[in-house]
Amino acid sequence: MSEPFDLRMPLEEAMETQRAIRRLKSDPVDDGLVLRLLELALKAPTGSNAQNWEFVVVRDPAVKARLARRNRQAWGVYGGIGRRLARGDAKMLRLLDAVQWQADHFEQIPVLVVACLRGLRAPFPPLFATSYYGSIYPSVQNLLLAARAAGLGAALITLPLWSTISVRRILGLPWNVTPCAVVPLGWPIGRYGPTTRKPVGDVVSLDRYGHRPFRRR
Amino acid sequence: MSEPFDLRMPLEEAMETQRAIRRLKSDPVDDGLVLRLLELALKAPTGSNAQNWEFVVVRDPAVKARLARRNRQAWGVYGGIGRRLARGDAKMLRLLDAVQWQADHFEQIPVLVVACLRGLRAPFPPLFATSYYGSIYPSVQNLLLAARAAGLGAALITLPLWSTISVRRILGLPWNVTPCAVVPLGWPIGRYGPTTRKPVGDVVSLDRYGHRPFRRR
Repeated sequence: MSEPFDLRMPLEEAMETQRAIRRLKSDPVDDGLVLRLLELALKAPTGSNAQNWEFVVVRDPAVKARLARRNRQAWGVYGGIGRRLARGDAKMLRLLDAVQWQADHFEQIPVLVVACLRGLRAPFPPLFATSYYGSIYPSVQNLLLAARAAGLGAALITLPLWSTISVRRILGLPWNVTPCAVVPLGWPIGRYGPTTRKPVGDVVSLDRYGHRPFRRR
Repeated sequence: MSEPFDLRMPLEEAMETQRAIRRLKSDPVDDGLVLRLLELALKAPTGSNAQNWEFVVVRDPAVKARLARRNRQAWGVYGGIGRRLARGDAKMLRLLDAVQWQADHFEQIPVLVVACLRGLRAPFPPLFATSYYGSIYPSVQNLLLAARAAGLGAALITLPLWSTISVRRILGLPWNVTPCAVVPLGWPIGRYGPTTRKPVGDVVSLDRYGHRPFRRR
């Protein structure tokens, strides 16, 4: 099944240069490559070794079109708010432009991967909720990193899933399979490259929240 | 800040050999290494580029002891159920043994990283919940993969967090900072190595849930 794709990029380099790539070419992406990326996604931790993840690979234009519509509906609301909040913030406006591009070209994205979980999603207590999502997002991050190593553009989005009922209908998901995240995959128009982040010392506390001995002076 | 630790392991190898390492030596782990791993954790995606993560690095024995107690309380309930369900399942019983070992030796773990999120945790609608946890678990997975590349044992656990109120008090977290996951770090007693997973074709559908053309016959 797994053809030899080159995914030997050093871990550090893959992480340092991973970023959301939203502008994607419509050129085809090989099934074997997508499966190899998903194979690596499955190596991520899974709570109680349940492996209760399900991945729907969407290539059918009709299914894509229906998800594109859901995405545009959510983006119509969220994007408008975002633009108002981002006024004057050039970096955030660039991000919003990229999300707009993605919404406008959603049907042309070669592959959408919808990551789902089987089993009850208990929103309460917090322990159940965090354990639940902790069984899908590590695999999604493996998928994103592996895509980066393969040179394939990818991003983590959730807007197309605003109506779980509708997405269940579109993908034929049973009631006990919940869509959690969407990863659009395609060869990048943009480039991978370093992201800008706060210094690590600003978000790390020692022993007690707010005690920040690692903060650069 | 970041000393040169060797984290150049090929991405594919790191993913293929990442597994929960629960039996850890009490030998010290360098602060610089922990910070470098967290620096890579921050390269993960973050919703709307909010970077609203907070990491509490716990080394203080008194704080560890309080988290150890919370962990044992949850494990007392969950572990008992687990053993009854796992009867006859040798693999699951080995996993439970490792979790038991971890609970028994929790105070001797050199470093606990508590991954938290700032901001409101809305349990409903599902879109908010999944977007929320989608902003912390990718960074946790980066931390786990980077630990693996460094040869440092790590695992993803949530049991010590069963009482959010108590953990907020132990770590001095403000009301709007929610603990999501704990990663115990230490030099491994056990070894990293391949995990066993279902074949990828068994958890991947094409276009519609249950349509499994990639399943091996």
